[in-house]
Amino acid sequence: MKLEQLAISVDTFYVLFAALLVFTMQIGFLLLETGMLRAKNAGHVAVKQIISFSVAALAFWAIGFGLTFGDGNSIIGTEGFFLQGGFSSLDWSNITIDVKFLFQLSFVAVSLAIAWGGFAERAKLSVYLLFGTFFVAIIYPIIARSVWAGGFLGSLGMQDFAGSTVVHLQGGIAALVAALLLKKRIGAEKTPLLGHNVIYSVVGAFILWLCWFGFNAGSTLTIADGFFSYVALTTLLATAAGALGALAISFWHRRVADIPSIINGVLAALVAITAACAFVEPWAAVVIGFLAGVITYGTSILLASRVDDPLCAFSVHGVAGIWGTLATGFFASPRLVEITGIGQAGLFYGGGFTQLGVQALGVVFAVVIVSVLSYAFLKVLDLTIGLRITREDELRGLDVAEHGQSSYDLPAPVSKELRMVEEEDLSNERVN
Amino acid sequence: MKLEQLAISVDTFYVLFAALLVFTMQIGFLLLETGMLRAKNAGHVAVKQIISFSVAALAFWAIGFGLTFGDGNSIIGTEGFFLQGGFSSLDWSNITIDVKFLFQLSFVAVSLAIAWGGFAERAKLSVYLLFGTFFVAIIYPIIARSVWAGGFLGSLGMQDFAGSTVVHLQGGIAALVAALLLKKRIGAEKTPLLGHNVIYSVVGAFILWLCWFGFNAGSTLTIADGFFSYVALTTLLATAAGALGALAISFWHRRVADIPSIINGVLAALVAITAACAFVEPWAAVVIGFLAGVITYGTSILLASRVDDPLCAFSVHGVAGIWGTLATGFFASPRLVEITGIGQAGLFYGGGFTQLGVQALGVVFAVVIVSVLSYAFLKVLDLTIGLRITREDELRGLDVAEHGQSSYDLPAPVSKELRMVEEEDLSNERVN
Amino acid sequence: MKLEQLAISVDTFYVLFAALLVFTMQIGFLLLETGMLRAKNAGHVAVKQIISFSVAALAFWAIGFGLTFGDGNSIIGTEGFFLQGGFSSLDWSNITIDVKFLFQLSFVAVSLAIAWGGFAERAKLSVYLLFGTFFVAIIYPIIARSVWAGGFLGSLGMQDFAGSTVVHLQGGIAALVAALLLKKRIGAEKTPLLGHNVIYSVVGAFILWLCWFGFNAGSTLTIADGFFSYVALTTLLATAAGALGALAISFWHRRVADIPSIINGVLAALVAITAACAFVEPWAAVVIGFLAGVITYGTSILLASRVDDPLCAFSVHGVAGIWGTLATGFFASPRLVEITGIGQAGLFYGGGFTQLGVQALGVVFAVVIVSVLSYAFLKVLDLTIGLRITREDELRGLDVAEHGQSSYDLPAPVSKELRMVEEEDLSNERVN
Repeated sequence: MKLEQLAISVDTFYVLFAALLVFTMQIGFLLLETGMLRAKNAGHVAVKQIISFSVAALAFWAIGFGLTFGDGNSIIGTEGFFLQGGFSSLDWSNITIDVKFLFQLSFVAVSLAIAWGGFAERAKLSVYLLFGTFFVAIIYPIIARSVWAGGFLGSLGMQDFAGSTVVHLQGGIAALVAALLLKKRIGAEKTPLLGHNVIYSVVGAFILWLCWFGFNAGSTLTIADGFFSYVALTTLLATAAGALGALAISFWHRRVADIPSIINGVLAALVAITAACAFVEPWAAVVIGFLAGVITYGTSILLASRVDDPLCAFSVHGVAGIWGTLATGFFASPRLVEITGIGQAGLFYGGGFTQLGVQALGVVFAVVIVSVLSYAFLKVLDLTIGLRITREDELRGLDVAEHGQSSYDLPAPVSKELRMVEEEDLSNERVN
Repeated sequence: MKLEQLAISVDTFYVLFAALLVFTMQIGFLLLETGMLRAKNAGHVAVKQIISFSVAALAFWAIGFGLTFGDGNSIIGTEGFFLQGGFSSLDWSNITIDVKFLFQLSFVAVSLAIAWGGFAERAKLSVYLLFGTFFVAIIYPIIARSVWAGGFLGSLGMQDFAGSTVVHLQGGIAALVAALLLKKRIGAEKTPLLGHNVIYSVVGAFILWLCWFGFNAGSTLTIADGFFSYVALTTLLATAAGALGALAISFWHRRVADIPSIINGVLAALVAITAACAFVEPWAAVVIGFLAGVITYGTSILLASRVDDPLCAFSVHGVAGIWGTLATGFFASPRLVEITGIGQAGLFYGGGFTQLGVQALGVVFAVVIVSVLSYAFLKVLDLTIGLRITREDELRGLDVAEHGQSSYDLPAPVSKELRMVEEEDLSNERVN
Repeated sequence: MKLEQLAISVDTFYVLFAALLVFTMQIGFLLLETGMLRAKNAGHVAVKQIISFSVAALAFWAIGFGLTFGDGNSIIGTEGFFLQGGFSSLDWSNITIDVKFLFQLSFVAVSLAIAWGGFAERAKLSVYLLFGTFFVAIIYPIIARSVWAGGFLGSLGMQDFAGSTVVHLQGGIAALVAALLLKKRIGAEKTPLLGHNVIYSVVGAFILWLCWFGFNAGSTLTIADGFFSYVALTTLLATAAGALGALAISFWHRRVADIPSIINGVLAALVAITAACAFVEPWAAVVIGFLAGVITYGTSILLASRVDDPLCAFSVHGVAGIWGTLATGFFASPRLVEITGIGQAGLFYGGGFTQLGVQALGVVFAVVIVSVLSYAFLKVLDLTIGLRITREDELRGLDVAEHGQSSYDLPAPVSKELRMVEEEDLSNERVN
């Protein structure tokens, strides 16, 4: 055995490990979403994640991976379908093509999971199958190729290390388009439609946080020189700051530590640091994460009355994705730009507006392409099979309507006596 | 340090990682089962997994691992108890014996977890302790040795890469025997006894899916040459196809996307590809997985009126285990047979019926041995301590009966007003 | 590339993997605690874990890691803040400083999570922010440095491989001090205040078990020579024995298999083996774990009437931490002492009382320092901002009081008919 062979095997192992972490984000999204939505749709929201991941796996294997990374022209790959053909855009790493596929699949599956936020509680199950296939096979490859596989944004030196734009902004834009087309849920005009289980959502958010190390640190595709651990460090610090930023603004604004806002602060910071994790110093990561938590809190509130985006997917993944992508234009440090070999230093390090301009161009390109293609495809579905379930089904809930069964048969509360004991105990103390 | 030493250390790390993934399948089974059963037995079902895993760990360390892999004759090992003695059947890998033990333990613990499906909601806790010990210490070693540790099935070239027969079929047969001996749960004749939390089950199934990469890809026991990543690929594709196969047949048959059926489709595909993952091409993995999802749907329905197997353990692990084991007899490709060095090409690649015959022989052997030994041991228990809890305890639920406490004290529903708002909103829209 | 470089990169990967496992223990604690407490505080308990982990990350990065491991004198580090400066106490490993930080952070975050047990259901959210910062930045570094970074206990040869004293005893003592200062919850005098979801707690405990492999096996900081897999083995065996020890004593004492006791048995065994995992033979690990399960059961019951420690943090982490720390003084084997190069053989191997004395000294030091500093800081908080929420808020629950929203909106029970079917089925059988 040669040393180089062992190094390649180890990197293959490392990237499979990272891919598994990112696959596990599917469970994170499942719990996050299920908890933030109503009990009558809970099973639907959960199992949709299995269906969506399955569709993504087969569609990306058959078509999307080839279009993104297969040999071809600068806009699309013309080979690589079913993993057959050349993938010279990925030749910079020597790990197996199988694990390259698995890792990239984990990314597109996250992007798709984000998009579903805008469809929640009112889209037909068939829409998930059709739009899921289209998103994975067509939309995502166009943006991903432009940045990561020899396209024009990559050539310009766009800094999007693990996909603030490629993964998150794409998903966030698709969610926004869907939410606008699907219109508001019944009742959403009158009252906030609260979720049914905060614990699921907190656990889901924590899973996403921890699995994100696969996302960001895994994107080095190698353990050589230990740089991946630096990426893990900036990711951690940014997220901690994002959680505390959201806590602070929530308390300042509403005098409570609003739990959905803290969750969104965690996720927004993760989204923002995803582009920047390899390009910025630890202090800058803290600033980027903190501001992501604050900005997302603001945009969530501003948008709430305009569009019914039940999981704030556009604020959390779209707005924070834009912020994270632009942030490297400000904070990219010369030291890290040299290590990664991508783009230039940011404005705050004397790099001028060049990098910031490239980053902004990437954002505009992604917003335009994704919104146009998503709108066109969903509009066609709307005019043919229809996007939205019937009103009766919406009132009954998707669990019964689409799956034939409620998700829960929970026991009746049993602690009335316990509460009486508490009261009694309290009144005794008052007497004494 | 030498290169060979580093390679061994890395493989040891890789297999510990895989073992941890497979250990985590215990949590997957815990959630899957708990959700599919009733709230009054929830805590029992959950904590039983901790007890079962503990029993498995100590019994396999003391006895089972030696009987399976210790030096001895072709039927049983006569040394290796408490990890003392020779394990020449495992000498093909140079990783530490400690991690070999942990990895193999993770397998037998899964097999045992499957068996419990047939005991659910009516067996005494003591039965779990006694049968668990017997299964881990005696039954499992006989089959595992015959295939994986120098026994006659291995010598014939049986292809069971990660245990469709050794792990899953064994568990499924034991579950069936138990379900027949324990008879139906009270009420099961009149109505399907639905679970109490679909979300737990979906999350459990997803955990099983992701941890299965440890099961299959881990079974290479080495990262050398990256072949493990190919195994991960076929596992993923088969499972995605299984989920969609079950969705398709459920919708065709019942016009709904039945969630338990989709879950079972995921698991059945995983079970089926477990034998075949290293021997078949990606397209064949898709076929095997899709058919596993369809077949299991059918056998679940056929068996439902005959035996009360609350988690469909026999259909999901038994039938799909048989299908997966036989599948390599059809689909094993010459290219992969050469890489693995096990058995011959399958029928569809001109290999004739030889390999198919060996696979069928393995199935028959496992079915006979496991059913005879399980039946004998459980019958003795039935005639002595008794297998089944009293009727009063069954009605109260195992949580109170065996553990002295209900599992839940959940709050009363609070959203009546919210539902009124929805209705009002709807009627306003109708007026307008 | 050189072989040494690859070995360092692989170790860096290994320790990042271990750190992620230990980070995931945050989710384990979240579920364990949430389930064992009441529904009206559930979201608070859950999101507190995100806030606490964020505080720990920033405070340890800014201050705590430097104080613990930075260059300076034998009591505190005087550089290393914000990861700037020398860390010669960690130079024995060549992995990156970033991953060393992440791994050590994962430990202090666990210690802090344990401490929160004593604050549960009655402390103000602001107390979590303030005490969390103080614990991570000041208390933990003093003990950790004394054992692991050139302090006097390490120089004496104290054997605390992964932190029975450094991590667990510290957390357990802080929890006890907090519980005493905060006094009992309303109602706790009259009745046990049972948790609201046993399933969460069982899943949480299982997550802790599996992630503990990162804790113990990760503490080798290297995969060289495969010794880490031995540590994993002893950890597994001890825990299995602890679960069964708690099951046995619970059944002997109360005639039921009490689920919280079994969970505590698992955790206590893990805590106890944490110090000893690298120093004792497998049989001794079984003894240590079994006794930990038994001892913790006893102390939990003894303490229950004296102090309201809602999660038994002192029994599970404090008492078992002391037991585990002392246990190496009895069971440390010469073979393993030579491998690790730390301390001497224990009493049962002819080592006399020397090692036992060192272990006892470490326990006393940790108990004194942590209790004095925790008491002083919490007393100041109590006299200024106040530690405890108002009685009205306690009765309403922290979810509404501190976070403005209940955590659950669960559906009403639907299975009344099902239960009627069961009864009918039963009465039919009686008639027949």
